[in-house]
Amino acid sequence: MSDLTPQPSDLTPQPSDHFTFGLWTVGWQARDPFGDATRPPLDPVESVERLSELGAYGVTFHDDDLIPFGSDDAARTQHIDRFKAALARTGMQVPMMTTNLFSHPIFKDGAFTSNDRQVRRYAIAKVMRNLDLAADLGASIYVMWGGREGAEVDSAKDIRAALDRYKEAVDVLCQYVIDQGYGIRFALEPKPNEPRGDILLPTVGHGLGFIEQLQYPDMVGLNPEVGHEQMSGLNFMHGIAQALWSGKLFHIDLNGQRGIKYDQDLVFGHGDLINAFFLVDLLESAGYDGMRHFDYKPLRTEDMDGVWASAASNMRTYLLLRERAASFRADPKVQEAMERSRIAELRQPTLAPGETYRDLPAVDEVDADAIGEAGYGFVALQQLAIDHLLGAR
Amino acid sequence: MSDLTPQPSDLTPQPSDHFTFGLWTVGWQARDPFGDATRPPLDPVESVERLSELGAYGVTFHDDDLIPFGSDDAARTQHIDRFKAALARTGMQVPMMTTNLFSHPIFKDGAFTSNDRQVRRYAIAKVMRNLDLAADLGASIYVMWGGREGAEVDSAKDIRAALDRYKEAVDVLCQYVIDQGYGIRFALEPKPNEPRGDILLPTVGHGLGFIEQLQYPDMVGLNPEVGHEQMSGLNFMHGIAQALWSGKLFHIDLNGQRGIKYDQDLVFGHGDLINAFFLVDLLESAGYDGMRHFDYKPLRTEDMDGVWASAASNMRTYLLLRERAASFRADPKVQEAMERSRIAELRQPTLAPGETYRDLPAVDEVDADAIGEAGYGFVALQQLAIDHLLGAR
Amino acid sequence: MSDLTPQPSDLTPQPSDHFTFGLWTVGWQARDPFGDATRPPLDPVESVERLSELGAYGVTFHDDDLIPFGSDDAARTQHIDRFKAALARTGMQVPMMTTNLFSHPIFKDGAFTSNDRQVRRYAIAKVMRNLDLAADLGASIYVMWGGREGAEVDSAKDIRAALDRYKEAVDVLCQYVIDQGYGIRFALEPKPNEPRGDILLPTVGHGLGFIEQLQYPDMVGLNPEVGHEQMSGLNFMHGIAQALWSGKLFHIDLNGQRGIKYDQDLVFGHGDLINAFFLVDLLESAGYDGMRHFDYKPLRTEDMDGVWASAASNMRTYLLLRERAASFRADPKVQEAMERSRIAELRQPTLAPGETYRDLPAVDEVDADAIGEAGYGFVALQQLAIDHLLGAR
Amino acid sequence: MSDLTPQPSDLTPQPSDHFTFGLWTVGWQARDPFGDATRPPLDPVESVERLSELGAYGVTFHDDDLIPFGSDDAARTQHIDRFKAALARTGMQVPMMTTNLFSHPIFKDGAFTSNDRQVRRYAIAKVMRNLDLAADLGASIYVMWGGREGAEVDSAKDIRAALDRYKEAVDVLCQYVIDQGYGIRFALEPKPNEPRGDILLPTVGHGLGFIEQLQYPDMVGLNPEVGHEQMSGLNFMHGIAQALWSGKLFHIDLNGQRGIKYDQDLVFGHGDLINAFFLVDLLESAGYDGMRHFDYKPLRTEDMDGVWASAASNMRTYLLLRERAASFRADPKVQEAMERSRIAELRQPTLAPGETYRDLPAVDEVDADAIGEAGYGFVALQQLAIDHLLGAR
Repeated sequence: MSDLTPQPSDLTPQPSDHFTFGLWTVGWQARDPFGDATRPPLDPVESVERLSELGAYGVTFHDDDLIPFGSDDAARTQHIDRFKAALARTGMQVPMMTTNLFSHPIFKDGAFTSNDRQVRRYAIAKVMRNLDLAADLGASIYVMWGGREGAEVDSAKDIRAALDRYKEAVDVLCQYVIDQGYGIRFALEPKPNEPRGDILLPTVGHGLGFIEQLQYPDMVGLNPEVGHEQMSGLNFMHGIAQALWSGKLFHIDLNGQRGIKYDQDLVFGHGDLINAFFLVDLLESAGYDGMRHFDYKPLRTEDMDGVWASAASNMRTYLLLRERAASFRADPKVQEAMERSRIAELRQPTLAPGETYRDLPAVDEVDADAIGEAGYGFVALQQLAIDHLLGAR
Repeated sequence: MSDLTPQPSDLTPQPSDHFTFGLWTVGWQARDPFGDATRPPLDPVESVERLSELGAYGVTFHDDDLIPFGSDDAARTQHIDRFKAALARTGMQVPMMTTNLFSHPIFKDGAFTSNDRQVRRYAIAKVMRNLDLAADLGASIYVMWGGREGAEVDSAKDIRAALDRYKEAVDVLCQYVIDQGYGIRFALEPKPNEPRGDILLPTVGHGLGFIEQLQYPDMVGLNPEVGHEQMSGLNFMHGIAQALWSGKLFHIDLNGQRGIKYDQDLVFGHGDLINAFFLVDLLESAGYDGMRHFDYKPLRTEDMDGVWASAASNMRTYLLLRERAASFRADPKVQEAMERSRIAELRQPTLAPGETYRDLPAVDEVDADAIGEAGYGFVALQQLAIDHLLGAR
Repeated sequence: MSDLTPQPSDLTPQPSDHFTFGLWTVGWQARDPFGDATRPPLDPVESVERLSELGAYGVTFHDDDLIPFGSDDAARTQHIDRFKAALARTGMQVPMMTTNLFSHPIFKDGAFTSNDRQVRRYAIAKVMRNLDLAADLGASIYVMWGGREGAEVDSAKDIRAALDRYKEAVDVLCQYVIDQGYGIRFALEPKPNEPRGDILLPTVGHGLGFIEQLQYPDMVGLNPEVGHEQMSGLNFMHGIAQALWSGKLFHIDLNGQRGIKYDQDLVFGHGDLINAFFLVDLLESAGYDGMRHFDYKPLRTEDMDGVWASAASNMRTYLLLRERAASFRADPKVQEAMERSRIAELRQPTLAPGETYRDLPAVDEVDADAIGEAGYGFVALQQLAIDHLLGAR
Repeated sequence: MSDLTPQPSDLTPQPSDHFTFGLWTVGWQARDPFGDATRPPLDPVESVERLSELGAYGVTFHDDDLIPFGSDDAARTQHIDRFKAALARTGMQVPMMTTNLFSHPIFKDGAFTSNDRQVRRYAIAKVMRNLDLAADLGASIYVMWGGREGAEVDSAKDIRAALDRYKEAVDVLCQYVIDQGYGIRFALEPKPNEPRGDILLPTVGHGLGFIEQLQYPDMVGLNPEVGHEQMSGLNFMHGIAQALWSGKLFHIDLNGQRGIKYDQDLVFGHGDLINAFFLVDLLESAGYDGMRHFDYKPLRTEDMDGVWASAASNMRTYLLLRERAASFRADPKVQEAMERSRIAELRQPTLAPGETYRDLPAVDEVDADAIGEAGYGFVALQQLAIDHLLGAR
């Protein structure tokens, strides 16, 4: 056992840990493609209170999570006022908000990229209305998950035109935010498929590429989700590293996924545990200062006690992994192994200061066979990581 | 049967079709992770001659495909001269070249992003040497497939540092090309995994995002490969559409893949045939004027006759799909169905000329339920596509 | 073009083609995990009538598709009587029936394998009640899809105990059918995941293995579904071949799936078209005499016109593929290519009649290198198949 | 920390732990589809000695691992004698052996199911010859991995005929073992793909179904491999549970795989760590008394030191997981949680002793809504498992 053995107190979530939850997570009634709801509706006010008790920093939501679709102005005001009161009572924050552009039939062919122009206009208006509320509640990040932007069959959509419309919508919304002086930044949330057969901007990478084509690229970043990248078989830690490297990790959705299949939204860490460990290690060592936002679904088998237990599990697992990652980094044996694996050498530029390509050795001067013989010791280093993860060092 | 029934002559490949093949494709000796070579080495000169007879426009190659690794200068010259003579005899072109940065043990932890700085320096030098040959042979595109840039275990590599080094290498090589006045452009080839567990720049999207961080983004585009994107479960036609939309489709690797598994490199069209149809439809209707490059492997079960038959199959399938796509687009029933599906409406900006977001209807003014009722007729349109693909209309 | 060019009449579905549809397919209201229903409820009587007009042979259904969950006896009788009248009017058959053991919250941890014994008892009773109706309507096959038999997390279920209970339930139900003299046979429907994270009996193979452990293995076979096997990345035609080889292809669910992702239930042939071609080729050449049952979902984007168009597309694609497969088999060039590939030689026993292993050559007597040189010509044969599929021969 | 905190001594592998390694694992020279060997050949004698020092119980091998393909009788005898001497010196056992039916070009279309009958005859003879050696060395299990039994394209093989030939080969080999009185049992090793596009008997389930069609089903069981099942996205622990339930877990191949991609053969536990934990929990609690056989590949980046470190990592991880599983089972909080989740209730038959289906309640008598309300507490139970896995309880 290392000296870094967790103290119980370390594992109690604190607001300073910046854990946040979507209202739609604990509030999910567990309706799925083959089954009816197994849980009653949950009052957003109760969610705020319970999550606050559990140590969360805040909540996030889609417009329709708080204010049912089609509410009139009076109802709308009432929902917002009750909610604000709960925030005030608990000190909970709303650092992020988003729009539901996927549940209502009007969005069945997409929102910003629906073939129907009326739908596209409506979608932008719906976001604008909710941006006003976001600004009012102090949210600084606004997530855009384009879950319905896509197609099941390849004849259904002119993809280049769809990207034009996607860009148009984001550009218009940036303009709106600028004009209103809201100071809000957007975070696109990639997903490869489900509910559409293929969704536009399917991965972190596609999102990064898209952003560079926008009118206001600095206002737009990403909100990558663990399970979404893993649904494409991609290494989530790698994706987050590229997002950080590009200055585009504006927000993050933490959850669990067990391989390439339907979107599971398990508790964080209940999927690929090793990758979750290295993700936390990256976020913490890179100084990521945004929210640790859980976008998960309590299993359909659970009652409300199970819902709150699952909410707590997300935070506990994050804290455990944070602690394990710290002990890994601090272990002299690990540092030795990293030295053998030449981890730090990669941070050294390939050309020394002042060098140009003219200073490189000619190909024939290099003894490639000799260099090729040296081992990298990666397995030994990884086993040390597993040992720390398992609390065995 | 439509009036567009193929005439035999349409299906004979012509140089004007711009079909090209890697020397490593027909020349693959069929060594795989579990088995020895089943075919003898193939002389590049024979490849040039046979592919020319089959109607190809040109060939492409890695340095080591033509000049065995470690050849001395005399041998090098001899290999190049014989090859040039074959090109001259046949009129075959070399529009693209690339470097082998993956076979030799020196590259076992990557080339541009190896933890070992010596390796990184050697890799850049190896590319520079081959760029000289590429310029000499008139290649205008230089592909960079970073197959070894990655890791199997998450502890092995500092991904952000790796991206720094990747960028450094590409920047240096762009500088070299500029300084030499070669006029060559680079095309990055994404791949999610194999031979490494996770490869950097795993998809078209990640490549697009990376390019924007480079010093000379205009000189760098993509060389997407059918199978590589499909190994991540992504829609290849969608990926190509985003690459085109971003102005980054510099080259393309055509082949076949049957779902998420090891890299199969089947004949083009022998994988996901419907997506191949829509890919050809996109390339042709978007006016893509680059090479139709086949990067496939003749099955290990085939002898040399089978190799040449498989080479011909790639081109035949492309031509068949091109013809089917043309008949699809020309069919008035298809045009009617597209009208019903509002395909063209997506090309219409969401805001009319002169409009701003202030001109959008308020959310409450829109009858969302009514708009949500209309069907899109996508299945009927797709069935027309299948009918054309099957030659049944 | 071959002489087997389709005549229009061949592509009109006839009852003799034995096409059947689940009431839940055309009747799907298009509620998905992220969206509300986009279509109104559909009266089963209308489904019977419309499908009959389109040329179907019959319909199939879960108990709750016809008789809403919780109906009292009077309502139950009324639903059944109206339905029977529609069958009588149209001549439509009900060759298969099944039970809904997945929608109601009681089944949230499974039916036959719920950890809660009350649920298991209820599930068996629900099947028994519906078996009485199945016998009354003349169904000869009863499908069991255990969509909720499984778990999301590995701690949740003792899998060996679950298989004991699964076997117990099937054994009890076989006994019931025997005792009632119903002459019904059961068909298990494998699926790897969704709605549970991992479902028991995930593939055709696991179903085959399970059946052999039952008390009445002869009464139990399989109902494989295209998309379900493809969700595990498996070759559906291969799976059907093993089911046929084992005498266990009692029924089949035809639809389309585009790779490893959520369950898409596309129109038959709108997924992996080449594999669909070889599936039809196998079913027809093996003399499969069961139903061609479509278990698909009309896209959520479609209105009711689109629903009926999609139903027709399933049958049209099957008939097109049947025709293409016949022309493939009849083509002398194909027969020649099969000869070169030694397709028929595999039907010849490895030991000749009367031979034993003692008659095999000793290892050292065989010239392995020489035998290993011969090519199999598989790519050329496959290209002929593609040509026929595309209607290009 | 629980009282079950590991004592160092527990983590030292002992022969009584029954850890075994294939000679081809540590001996892999790291040639992959895109790269040359990075390590020198390894003398099997050295492997025996080093693995013995590390605490292994024995080794396993393919004929060609010990005796190079094509060796004459004198060389053969010499190889065997040296190897036997090493076994005698170290006390290492050879509990399992197998045949290489995949490397040589003769097997390029399969061995038992090659379209070429000469190949099939040769393959059976090659196995027979090696069975004699297996019996001589005291192996009780003989593994058959049919890696080349399959196809890349669907036209290439009559699958039902292939299964006939597969059965014929296994039947003949069983007869041979019976006639020779060897007392050896066969273990089929399923794999979905790679090196063939689709391999016959792709999963544990398909193997189980196939065995029941054999002439001597009692002599044939399975050798499932972690990575192979996970390459189909299947839950390995579930597959092993069904194999145990069927009495067919004759042997097991332990390694690591990170999702659906090429065959990675990582160190055990370096893939899906949570599933590995539950696998060890199952093997240990089910009283599996066979070998814990590691079939992995040391990363291509490693030198020989890294090879031996990786071999040790496999055993260490198994022992760590075994300890964690024991502490999980022993924890009263876990037992309480299992009670709430009704884990043991599933072991109780659905019909009580003496009951028949007539004793089940009528459907209408059951209050389904009430039963459906109860939660199962699975997330809380799983979090306890994660806590134990992480050494945090």
